[in-house]
Amino acid sequence: MLLYEGKAKRIWSQDNGLVCQEFKDSITAFNGELKKEILGKGKINNNISCYLFEKINDEGIRTHFKNKIDEISMLCDKVDIIPLEVVVRNYTDGSFCKRYGVAEGQPIKLVEFFLKNDKFNDPLINENALIELKIVSKAEVELLTWMANCVNAILQEIFFAVSLNLIDIKLEFGKNKNDQIVLADEISPDTCRLHDVKTGESFDKDIFRKQKGNVIEAYKEVFKRLNIK
Amino acid sequence: MLLYEGKAKRIWSQDNGLVCQEFKDSITAFNGELKKEILGKGKINNNISCYLFEKINDEGIRTHFKNKIDEISMLCDKVDIIPLEVVVRNYTDGSFCKRYGVAEGQPIKLVEFFLKNDKFNDPLINENALIELKIVSKAEVELLTWMANCVNAILQEIFFAVSLNLIDIKLEFGKNKNDQIVLADEISPDTCRLHDVKTGESFDKDIFRKQKGNVIEAYKEVFKRLNIK
Repeated sequence: MLLYEGKAKRIWSQDNGLVCQEFKDSITAFNGELKKEILGKGKINNNISCYLFEKINDEGIRTHFKNKIDEISMLCDKVDIIPLEVVVRNYTDGSFCKRYGVAEGQPIKLVEFFLKNDKFNDPLINENALIELKIVSKAEVELLTWMANCVNAILQEIFFAVSLNLIDIKLEFGKNKNDQIVLADEISPDTCRLHDVKTGESFDKDIFRKQKGNVIEAYKEVFKRLNIK
Repeated sequence: MLLYEGKAKRIWSQDNGLVCQEFKDSITAFNGELKKEILGKGKINNNISCYLFEKINDEGIRTHFKNKIDEISMLCDKVDIIPLEVVVRNYTDGSFCKRYGVAEGQPIKLVEFFLKNDKFNDPLINENALIELKIVSKAEVELLTWMANCVNAILQEIFFAVSLNLIDIKLEFGKNKNDQIVLADEISPDTCRLHDVKTGESFDKDIFRKQKGNVIEAYKEVFKRLNIK
């Protein structure tokens, strides 16, 4: 049974409190304003995501990921998604630069929370507002920040080893049936900014946002560099 | 010598590291989009502001205020303004409700920081971004939060005693010649939301924003209730 269909994924119910997360070929940007089908993108993102979730699980950080099902889908614990986008920034780029008029490419160490709400354009929200609006508790804000920083550090190392700088990453978290917070959603060039260490070239969704270059070739290059079997 | 002219005030240099802050009759909203002259507003706001700054000084919170000069101006320490709007919210209203799609009038306890930048529409900024962008230090963020909460508590009591609920307030801070952080700018119905405790009626700039009612009569009522000599 289809539980949920988003812009880039479908969630199907399975037995025993599990779900199948299927990656679509659709790519969207600017809150769905820009939209396209890119043949093979779902397969690449599923494979990259399975590979990275496994690494994160191995490091002892809880995620919803169980195992790869097939080329376009993964088996996951069913979770209640916390309606937040948690962004970790290692360098200034994207919305951060547009919001404050700051130059791109400055080193920075920052976690930002955005309320997942398409109607309100996913607004930035500070920690106290999150707590006051009872979206999460103070302890949960602290745990989310800690987990986001850990995941970022793990991924920075993995990507840097294949000459990619992790500029920033958007994470989503959920609560499993035991009410534990786990990393959910996906980790792919749709949700990370990845720049080649030497050339600074983008290997992520910015190619689509800026309509500059071949999206699938860039995503395939990330897959290839990670040496995913 | 005119040092600075803003939307609602002029700052004139004086001897001995002091300035004269003159209140204009102009009123603006929505980043200057809406603009009007309201005869007598400068005088009312200067009087309310002098009265409230004196109360805050009396409570031991440092402000830039020295004394009233005349009906439209006050003598202040010259300060370097920290480019932040510090908003304390006691009830949800205004931009907070628009940003998150939250109902107005909910009790809340919240400090928000906005970067003073008309070009970027005074964007919300979280504490870590303030520190990372070196706008203020971590200790300064903590001091600003503490001072803002103190000022809010003092004003809540003063206004509640005259049957006005302080819904929210926008504060600005500066650094004096000794590098101490002091409350600066003004405190008036231009920078506070004030609702009658019983009727919920607005006695603040929302009358102008919403073009609903007589601005000067409402401001005069605040002046009158505070029993300012």
